Amino acid sequence: MSETHARRRSLLRAELRAGDLDALLVTDLLNLRYLTGFTGSNAALLVHAEDEERSVFCTDGRYITQSETQVPDLRRVIDRPCDIALARSAHGRLGFESHKVTVEGLDLLSEAGTAELVRAPGLVERLRLIKDEAEVEALRMACAAADRALADLVEHGGLRPGRSELEVARELESRMLEHGAAGPAFETIAAAGPNSAIPHHRPTGAVLRSGDFVKLDFGARVDGYHSDMTRTFVLGAAADWQREVYELVAAAQAAGRAALEVGAKVADVDAAARSVIETGGHGERFLHGLGHGVGLQVHEAPALSKVGVGTLAAGMAVTVEPGVYLAGRGGVRIEDTLVVRADAPELLTLTTKDLVVV
Amino acid sequence: MSETHARRRSLLRAELRAGDLDALLVTDLLNLRYLTGFTGSNAALLVHAEDEERSVFCTDGRYITQSETQVPDLRRVIDRPCDIALARSAHGRLGFESHKVTVEGLDLLSEAGTAELVRAPGLVERLRLIKDEAEVEALRMACAAADRALADLVEHGGLRPGRSELEVARELESRMLEHGAAGPAFETIAAAGPNSAIPHHRPTGAVLRSGDFVKLDFGARVDGYHSDMTRTFVLGAAADWQREVYELVAAAQAAGRAALEVGAKVADVDAAARSVIETGGHGERFLHGLGHGVGLQVHEAPALSKVGVGTLAAGMAVTVEPGVYLAGRGGVRIEDTLVVRADAPELLTLTTKDLVVV
Repeated sequence: MSETHARRRSLLRAELRAGDLDALLVTDLLNLRYLTGFTGSNAALLVHAEDEERSVFCTDGRYITQSETQVPDLRRVIDRPCDIALARSAHGRLGFESHKVTVEGLDLLSEAGTAELVRAPGLVERLRLIKDEAEVEALRMACAAADRALADLVEHGGLRPGRSELEVARELESRMLEHGAAGPAFETIAAAGPNSAIPHHRPTGAVLRSGDFVKLDFGARVDGYHSDMTRTFVLGAAADWQREVYELVAAAQAAGRAALEVGAKVADVDAAARSVIETGGHGERFLHGLGHGVGLQVHEAPALSKVGVGTLAAGMAVTVEPGVYLAGRGGVRIEDTLVVRADAPELLTLTTKDLVVV
Repeated sequence: MSETHARRRSLLRAELRAGDLDALLVTDLLNLRYLTGFTGSNAALLVHAEDEERSVFCTDGRYITQSETQVPDLRRVIDRPCDIALARSAHGRLGFESHKVTVEGLDLLSEAGTAELVRAPGLVERLRLIKDEAEVEALRMACAAADRALADLVEHGGLRPGRSELEVARELESRMLEHGAAGPAFETIAAAGPNSAIPHHRPTGAVLRSGDFVKLDFGARVDGYHSDMTRTFVLGAAADWQREVYELVAAAQAAGRAALEVGAKVADVDAAARSVIETGGHGERFLHGLGHGVGLQVHEAPALSKVGVGTLAAGMAVTVEPGVYLAGRGGVRIEDTLVVRADAPELLTLTTKDLVVV
């Protein structure tokens, strides 16, 4: 992996030179992980614009051994606090992550050394927008863990009347661990019956009943990368209104996926799915954006929404997740994680999207 | 619970009046949860210094239903971004969480309205230092989930030669879910043999062998509160050096616990345990602080360390976790979560600290 990280740092150095910075002080832990592979809870990195040899990684005494293994290819200092230690030794125009550094934190950095502190928000995040193959592979594994956990849950009768939302959510999370997840990507949503009409319902002791929608929104974390998937089932037998809502959301979701083309405006992707739901008469019951980027964070850029700005590029990983929520009755959301490709998008969550009655 | 949250807000309002602030804009999600019970991913709260009726809670459209349930007792607006919406409507001296608000974020707040923005770092965190009984009960449940998971693991032969660190870590996490955890408090550390000498080792495919130390550092999350516990076992039969190191760490840990008295300086608590290890000749192999506060964060104030500042007060929840790490051979850490009380500290992690050979 260290070649991958060195390549990412090389791309960043080009950005620094273009931005007329002598170095960037990276303090966000996810950005640090992206640039070095370090997974500990305390570190900072000074990326020198010209010379990899002058870049420095800092962590504290707890992580001496771990950083030797994970970051073998950078000059390393052991000190605490890391950001101050690195700022003290910097010269010239030093970029800092002004979208992450706090107001109090900037005071401490300013007092630490003589470098000119320059706001440099979002530089690493811009690189992270486009996933390299190591990242896509981690996303693929995270999606596979979620797919397999759901298959096991259904196969072993995990969705049956009388079980609670909490039991279902915990079983899904346990099964993801069995399939290689380091943990859930976020707190699993299991929502039964009327609760399925709450977009971000937290699972409760409410029990599943025959005739209910059961909505499961969940994901796995593998190597720091997150999957995100929603499937909605019907217990027992599906009523006509349930089939209608389901088919409408499925059609909108397919339209959203089909709109994932290189160069497409993100607002247009949202509109492609949203117009299907509007035509179906439920436009006001699709309460959220169509999707979001996914990677080291479960929610990251780009936002696929009405107010989203920008266009899609090859290598972006995004969710497509339209929903229709009928208060008091039930709701449907169908969500995949995909990678934008030059030809067709690559689908990473492979569980069927046909209506499954269990 | 809403009485509990109203009481916490009342304490905060007294702090605001003492600090000559008209209101505080709370944007940190954990501080928000502490003050309102809200568990969603986007919200802000304006706490008015004089009048609870003039306090306002803001979240976005995804959380309309959830916020009605979780925050029934505050005026509510649905808008996005929440911090900007609340700053726009504020007047007078408006405190903001300058230890959390970023440099870029402050620019946006400044442009939003006419209130005078005043740095107010750490006000809610100071309240959070002292746990109320609702918090201690959540910590108790989190510690119990971890205790029970470990008991199950050992009873069902989970610690046996040939298993990998990863298998052990995942089984522990699964079993915590079975015992009521919403998830692990942090990524479980399972470290076998020489890996046990790495204080913060991440579990790998390395297998447990007879004669090894096996160090498990793990915790559960219940109602947002974290437990934190470490136990170190020996597989098969304990060698003399293992018993010696174990007994030394156990003695140091007991000394640390005994020093948890109201009014004690945190650096003195660290010293009470550290001096035992120094006398035993391993002072340089105890590489970290003695412990830390625990609550809505797994690491929070106070830090029990050489350089820690301040004294203990009744109601603080802390860990006591000395360790000795012999590079290439193995290490021992023993850690409890406790609550400081007027008389003796209350032990929340109840698993035995005798040397267990499995």
